[in-house]
Amino acid sequence: MATATGQGDIRDRLGIEHPIVGFTPSEHVAAAISRAGGLGVLGCVRFNDAEELDATLDWLDANTDGKPYGVDVVMPMNAPTEGSAIDLSTLIPQEHRDFVDRTLEELGVPALPGGVAEGAGVLGWLHSVARAQVDVALRHRPALIANALGSPPKDVIDEAHAAGVPVAALAGRVVHAQRQVDDGVDIVVAQGHEAGGHTGEITSMVLLPEVVDAVGDRALVLGAGGIGCGRQVAAALALGASGVWMGSAWLLAEEYGKGFPGSAAMQDALLHASSSDTVRSRIYSGKPARLLRSRWSEAWAAPDAPEPLPMPLQNLLVAEAHLRISAAEDPGVIAMPAGQIIGRFDRIRPVADMMADLVEETRTAIARLAAF
Amino acid sequence: MATATGQGDIRDRLGIEHPIVGFTPSEHVAAAISRAGGLGVLGCVRFNDAEELDATLDWLDANTDGKPYGVDVVMPMNAPTEGSAIDLSTLIPQEHRDFVDRTLEELGVPALPGGVAEGAGVLGWLHSVARAQVDVALRHRPALIANALGSPPKDVIDEAHAAGVPVAALAGRVVHAQRQVDDGVDIVVAQGHEAGGHTGEITSMVLLPEVVDAVGDRALVLGAGGIGCGRQVAAALALGASGVWMGSAWLLAEEYGKGFPGSAAMQDALLHASSSDTVRSRIYSGKPARLLRSRWSEAWAAPDAPEPLPMPLQNLLVAEAHLRISAAEDPGVIAMPAGQIIGRFDRIRPVADMMADLVEETRTAIARLAAF
Repeated sequence: MATATGQGDIRDRLGIEHPIVGFTPSEHVAAAISRAGGLGVLGCVRFNDAEELDATLDWLDANTDGKPYGVDVVMPMNAPTEGSAIDLSTLIPQEHRDFVDRTLEELGVPALPGGVAEGAGVLGWLHSVARAQVDVALRHRPALIANALGSPPKDVIDEAHAAGVPVAALAGRVVHAQRQVDDGVDIVVAQGHEAGGHTGEITSMVLLPEVVDAVGDRALVLGAGGIGCGRQVAAALALGASGVWMGSAWLLAEEYGKGFPGSAAMQDALLHASSSDTVRSRIYSGKPARLLRSRWSEAWAAPDAPEPLPMPLQNLLVAEAHLRISAAEDPGVIAMPAGQIIGRFDRIRPVADMMADLVEETRTAIARLAAF
Repeated sequence: MATATGQGDIRDRLGIEHPIVGFTPSEHVAAAISRAGGLGVLGCVRFNDAEELDATLDWLDANTDGKPYGVDVVMPMNAPTEGSAIDLSTLIPQEHRDFVDRTLEELGVPALPGGVAEGAGVLGWLHSVARAQVDVALRHRPALIANALGSPPKDVIDEAHAAGVPVAALAGRVVHAQRQVDDGVDIVVAQGHEAGGHTGEITSMVLLPEVVDAVGDRALVLGAGGIGCGRQVAAALALGASGVWMGSAWLLAEEYGKGFPGSAAMQDALLHASSSDTVRSRIYSGKPARLLRSRWSEAWAAPDAPEPLPMPLQNLLVAEAHLRISAAEDPGVIAMPAGQIIGRFDRIRPVADMMADLVEETRTAIARLAAF
């Protein structure tokens, strides 16, 4: 399958067969995407420990049939107030802690039997941890270092380039894309309003050609947000993208279940969700992110709920709640980033089948357009 | 230029050369769109008087070189509390009237020298008026009756069909589209979140294939929202649409200025706006509608501003304000529906040039996709 852009070819750049990049927190899904001819990109924010990430990347090196994969690290351009998790936690108002405790109780989410390790699930959002993750990643063979929070710090870009690894960044506005390219970013992921996770106001249909026109031949552009079938891949290519970046779709992959507590309940909830069942809220991280609507997000939308805290305090506030919610395995109470595209999926399938359908439908859509 | 769908061909159905339908409140723009090979659709909500609409449609009949045009009437499926404008006005709280008066004074918007006719600019939103407009329209030769507020009442659909005229309706969700097709609507306009005017939460990239799949071969589907260049037309076709419905783009047409007070200031404001300079708010009509961000919309977003009233009371509340704002000709104070696509336009051009570029870029985008 070929791309349709004057910008160069993302497949040549990344050494992949199809112009489809898949973001996922699961190494099993990432490996399957890469084996199927796309580029699996492993989200690293869940790794508090550099050795755990190291071991996971060893596993990826061994399970991708030698095909390329990428690594996504959360790197705020402006480092947040740094310190240990304990230092930061003193900044969280008691009102917020009380609200979280009360809400979890009302939703019937039990405490974790073994308690929670200090900093569990939150250190990945800190600058120093993200930087260590990049160091670990570059000791492996990533084909891409990506940052889901915009332009990475300049020295991280330089470090990746010195290792011959291209850098990708997510942009929700043209001005972000321009700054990223000025900073040396090689691949801009233009992420529309409909996307899961951190997202801006501008939708893919409007944002994608804007970003393509703004960066010209200085970077490749991937379209993200609202991509779940081949017609949407074809549409992104028609808008000028070199390829697509997909996230939410892979939450429905059979491989996702391996090793993730709560994945069965989460997948059950996603299967029953329509495109109207997401909300864009600051409750997940402190920055606006699109999530699956659930009793958890509804509780935060109630008139008596407190305003979410800024990043990274909101992460710290809800980290244990996220673990408890996952462990509770209740499809009605889910804390999971998800885009509007989730309405398209009605079954759990292996990544290889999903990829084959994507490629086939993209071909069909392009052929249909070309038939005159 | 051919379409790319298994649904049938919108061009054959409407007798047009290009699969581009253009909504506009200006008969001059509508006529130019039709003359250029698209279908100009005249928005009728501004006509309080059936004779005025009748005369305008006479003008369209005489100025479209015999090419087809359409008519858009605002028909709420559920008739609002009906009565004269004077009856309805008693339902508006004094707090709201005071806020509007105070805000206009603060923004430096003068009163109209000649005063305002009772009901000016608001009667078009009433059910009985819309029904009379359909009756008038069907005495001319419309190729389409459209309803920007969803499914028209069943008797209106039957009346149009009896006259051999297809009916279009705007849908922001799949369930709306399904209900419309059940009611007999022939053409569903799937309008994404990014669109100007009344709009839902789901973006074009996600909504369009959902609606295409849901209606199957029971109706033709047009993509609306975020369409301003040929790549976006090609993307909508790739997503399965039979064609596109464009609104905001035509506000930048040279022909728009003819006969509309305030159009110079409005066009100046739009030329300087980016895709981030819109807001989705209930202040225009009582239902969520995307507008150009301006000092007027900002005033309604302030903490001390009242909640907008339900339709049609909000129309009645702000009708005189809209006339005063238009007359004031201040690019900083604009009350105008506009989609995110406005960021794409940087000059005022004749409709014929806009259409030629749309067609040419669509061809190029399709050819580029097809080149492998």
